[in-house]
Amino acid sequence: MRPDPRTGIATVCLSGTLEDKLAAAAKAGFDGIELFENDLLAARPGPAEIRKRCADLGLSIDLYQPFRDFEAVPPDVLAANLRRAEHKFDVMAELGVDTVLVCSSVSPDAIDDDDLAAEQLHLLASRASERGLRIAYEALAWGRYVNGYEHAWRIVRRAAHPALGVCLDSFHILSKGDDPRVIRAIPGEKIFFLQLADAPTLPMDVLQWSRHHRLFPGQGDFDLTTFTGHVLATGYTGPLSLEVFNDVFRQADPYRASVDAMRSLLALKDSLGLLDIPSAPASQGYAFAEIVGDSGLAALGFTRAGVHRTKPVELWTQGEARVLVNASGEPGTIAALGITVPDPTAAGQRSEGMLAPALSRTAGPGEAALTAIAAPDGTQIFFCSSDDWIEDFVPTGESAPAAGITGIDHVSLTQPFDHFDEATLFYRSVLGLEPGPVTEFAAPYGLVRGRGVSGSGIRLSLDAALVRRGDWAPAVREPQHIAFSCDDALASARALRTLGARVLEIPANYYDDLAARTGLAAETIGALQECSVLYDRDARGEFLHFYTELAGARVFFEVVQRIGDYRGFGVVNAPVRMAAHHDARLTSTQH
Amino acid sequence: MRPDPRTGIATVCLSGTLEDKLAAAAKAGFDGIELFENDLLAARPGPAEIRKRCADLGLSIDLYQPFRDFEAVPPDVLAANLRRAEHKFDVMAELGVDTVLVCSSVSPDAIDDDDLAAEQLHLLASRASERGLRIAYEALAWGRYVNGYEHAWRIVRRAAHPALGVCLDSFHILSKGDDPRVIRAIPGEKIFFLQLADAPTLPMDVLQWSRHHRLFPGQGDFDLTTFTGHVLATGYTGPLSLEVFNDVFRQADPYRASVDAMRSLLALKDSLGLLDIPSAPASQGYAFAEIVGDSGLAALGFTRAGVHRTKPVELWTQGEARVLVNASGEPGTIAALGITVPDPTAAGQRSEGMLAPALSRTAGPGEAALTAIAAPDGTQIFFCSSDDWIEDFVPTGESAPAAGITGIDHVSLTQPFDHFDEATLFYRSVLGLEPGPVTEFAAPYGLVRGRGVSGSGIRLSLDAALVRRGDWAPAVREPQHIAFSCDDALASARALRTLGARVLEIPANYYDDLAARTGLAAETIGALQECSVLYDRDARGEFLHFYTELAGARVFFEVVQRIGDYRGFGVVNAPVRMAAHHDARLTSTQH
Repeated sequence: MRPDPRTGIATVCLSGTLEDKLAAAAKAGFDGIELFENDLLAARPGPAEIRKRCADLGLSIDLYQPFRDFEAVPPDVLAANLRRAEHKFDVMAELGVDTVLVCSSVSPDAIDDDDLAAEQLHLLASRASERGLRIAYEALAWGRYVNGYEHAWRIVRRAAHPALGVCLDSFHILSKGDDPRVIRAIPGEKIFFLQLADAPTLPMDVLQWSRHHRLFPGQGDFDLTTFTGHVLATGYTGPLSLEVFNDVFRQADPYRASVDAMRSLLALKDSLGLLDIPSAPASQGYAFAEIVGDSGLAALGFTRAGVHRTKPVELWTQGEARVLVNASGEPGTIAALGITVPDPTAAGQRSEGMLAPALSRTAGPGEAALTAIAAPDGTQIFFCSSDDWIEDFVPTGESAPAAGITGIDHVSLTQPFDHFDEATLFYRSVLGLEPGPVTEFAAPYGLVRGRGVSGSGIRLSLDAALVRRGDWAPAVREPQHIAFSCDDALASARALRTLGARVLEIPANYYDDLAARTGLAAETIGALQECSVLYDRDARGEFLHFYTELAGARVFFEVVQRIGDYRGFGVVNAPVRMAAHHDARLTSTQH
Repeated sequence: MRPDPRTGIATVCLSGTLEDKLAAAAKAGFDGIELFENDLLAARPGPAEIRKRCADLGLSIDLYQPFRDFEAVPPDVLAANLRRAEHKFDVMAELGVDTVLVCSSVSPDAIDDDDLAAEQLHLLASRASERGLRIAYEALAWGRYVNGYEHAWRIVRRAAHPALGVCLDSFHILSKGDDPRVIRAIPGEKIFFLQLADAPTLPMDVLQWSRHHRLFPGQGDFDLTTFTGHVLATGYTGPLSLEVFNDVFRQADPYRASVDAMRSLLALKDSLGLLDIPSAPASQGYAFAEIVGDSGLAALGFTRAGVHRTKPVELWTQGEARVLVNASGEPGTIAALGITVPDPTAAGQRSEGMLAPALSRTAGPGEAALTAIAAPDGTQIFFCSSDDWIEDFVPTGESAPAAGITGIDHVSLTQPFDHFDEATLFYRSVLGLEPGPVTEFAAPYGLVRGRGVSGSGIRLSLDAALVRRGDWAPAVREPQHIAFSCDDALASARALRTLGARVLEIPANYYDDLAARTGLAAETIGALQECSVLYDRDARGEFLHFYTELAGARVFFEVVQRIGDYRGFGVVNAPVRMAAHHDARLTSTQH
């Protein structure tokens, strides 16, 4: 195994005062920070005091940043810029930081002249080196003349000063589609700093994209494993440091955001083979889903198959679907998911290694001791070894008429606004689930962003409001649901209705439009409408699905039939479902 | 005066179920709606029932929209598209709407052939006209081959069918920088529909810009007065209809958003000379600002000059600055602003005409009867005629040492998240204040968006969090403040300190950086730092300003000195101020 790089985070990633940010970064276990100048300016403690605070917290200050608009300017501007730099060198000396980030100029004063840039950067590096400091020159993606890392490196090479190197920032390189393989041509000792950021692919102005939508590695669409691999291959020995400008993270709890950030580096190191923890579990599917309170499972064709030996929990089954009904807890919620894994202990070790919050569980004598962690939305995740845990339930011997449900297809979990991107990374790094594309749709009370994560036998649909909801929206916490699989959605819908289930009624308007846009036969449309079954299709297959009304404060059920290799979740129908749930709630209130 | 056009709003502008949207649009006084298809699909009532509901509410359904990807396709696709259209014609007949919006195609099936497009649109129009319906063809800014309104009009002209016309959408035209004067070449009877939307100038993908960031007219950067003038000049007799996709409005209370929307059309009509109400008042400046609770004005050099004859209100003055201190109300807030206008009755009539919420006031016998309205953030705005209102205060005869304050420079009001854009339009339409540029800055607890609005003697600084704040941020409701003007900020700061005012202390780090970036003389920097005075400059002049600590739950004071023609608000220093207020609060809690 290669040496383990140090970890760092720029203070600009986090919310709060500088003191908040430092405390949060230290608590999450970062080795060092990049001190963002604006955070220093607004701080009450002076540089010497901040140096001491960082030392007390066990944090090194690895970079002072940014110094803007220095190079390739006329002599009078150069003199002013050098004076400005000397001021900052004074501050750096007090802080005890030896490297300053100099961004490629965006100034109208700048001249398109690489020789002049190299000459002036050489001068700056000489001044810095007299004080034991060094300059890390970085190409901004929107730099006036220098906007690519290869160009920045050419200038640094031309300047040829030992106190001048490059700073590489994954966003500036990958956002432009630049080939990162050329990094391998840079000697490791000339890479003075490495800043890491992921991002979603967005068709927008690169500066706005950079300043508002960066993400921690593993949350977006960039391949940071390959990128970082190139940098480490040069012999770079500095920290892996996060620089993530993100509107949501900037206002989120910095203690939690720091853990999310650290998890992103741990997952990155793991993907590079630098971490000595078990790999993500190869799950064999859902062991169970646990809900709180009676939710009318009998009317869905489930059998009350067992009663827990010591706890107020019942086991309900149908086909391979197993649902635990807990009499204690917040009624009408999904409390937990059980996942069958080959080695629960190893899964627990990986979770711990990825900073998943562990939950302490009490197992009675002879009961299965389950490893459990908390997901970002508070749902408990249990790792189960085969079906040992079923032994904790005393069989009832009951049996009931089934409705064709064969198992759990997916579970849909609404994410807290601040934690949508954290959730993607959590499931990816802890459980090895792969994120699908991000979808956005207009729900009745505002836009909703959704993303599926899936792996062997496990599918989760995650969603969150795009704008944190205010007073108007009736459902600040949207309900969550369990989607069961079946082989024949129409037959299951009919069976459920016979059993007395409250199937969510879908408006006729939906079917009129479905007929118009799909060209499905009139009898097919008629059958779907009669059963309130919704329909979607893509290039791979078809999807038939229907819902129950809310079975509690925040939980309902879905039954889905996948035809062919359809991999989605019927998101196109979500607004219709949401409006129907809203109508059904109003109707049931009126009763 | 030209005939008054009807008003309309697309259901997609508003949040909620279709029933919510219709009720809100009717309540705000709209004449008609554009029915957005997705709103119909998710609605429980069928088309006939929606037709009846609209009729009951006094709303006409003026447009069914959108019908996508119709024209310039191979024969088999055409057949499917016609079948799809016939389905929609059935729905339209039930709804009683005679016009459908057909957007220029974005489909990969489409062919770049204007003759084919014209031929197929002619066929569609023939089918429509058989049923008494008509087709309004619109060029989407991102249409595959047809993305400009002149191009759409050429195709419509070539198709030459009486049931085929164009739909003009201000966003699609102005976002591309197309010249709207060519609209005058289109005969009015061939403009079947007019959709209006404003937008901020944003450097981004036009489709994303259109779908997320449209605004109501008067809230953004487009010149809709000129644009609409061109359309009306053609003899267009259809409605002025709003089609605004906006992430914030989509989740805001639709009743309030509808009033905001209607205000935008009233202001537009007013700017076109189509409204018979008094013009915006030419204010003569602030009459007063009113705060609740004792706020330490004595230490700011104010004199308690009068006591209200019947209410628990004191008048404090210094120079031209007058502050009312009300003993009742929510302590530590800015309760009201008084504005001196030539004709308060006319100002009140205009406010009413612009749908500003009127406040009922009780005036005692012989007291000044003031007209008052509520601003979007709840602040009361009084219209005062000269200084009559001062007669309501019995002079105390007191006098106190002043501190150089000469008047009220501006008032800074934090806007509720959902109402930032509403506020701009409110002040623009009701008071005739002109909005300045939108600024965004990173505050310690998240991004803040700000905008100044100003007119004769009145300046307001409006700001709101860019992301609605969650639990972490300590100040979900940021404090508001009154900024007083002075001629010598350093002298005033010293005077205040002598008087015992709690001037907000600014960290030394700020001055180190100020020295580095401005090149101000060391003694100047020293004096600023000694007085905790902040500094800004732009091409027009300089700005010196300092703050008090919080004088109550949500209020503090600023003292500003403008040098030259500086017109800003020192936004660059806002993060430093916010962090300092946060520190001061922590410190005062520890005492």
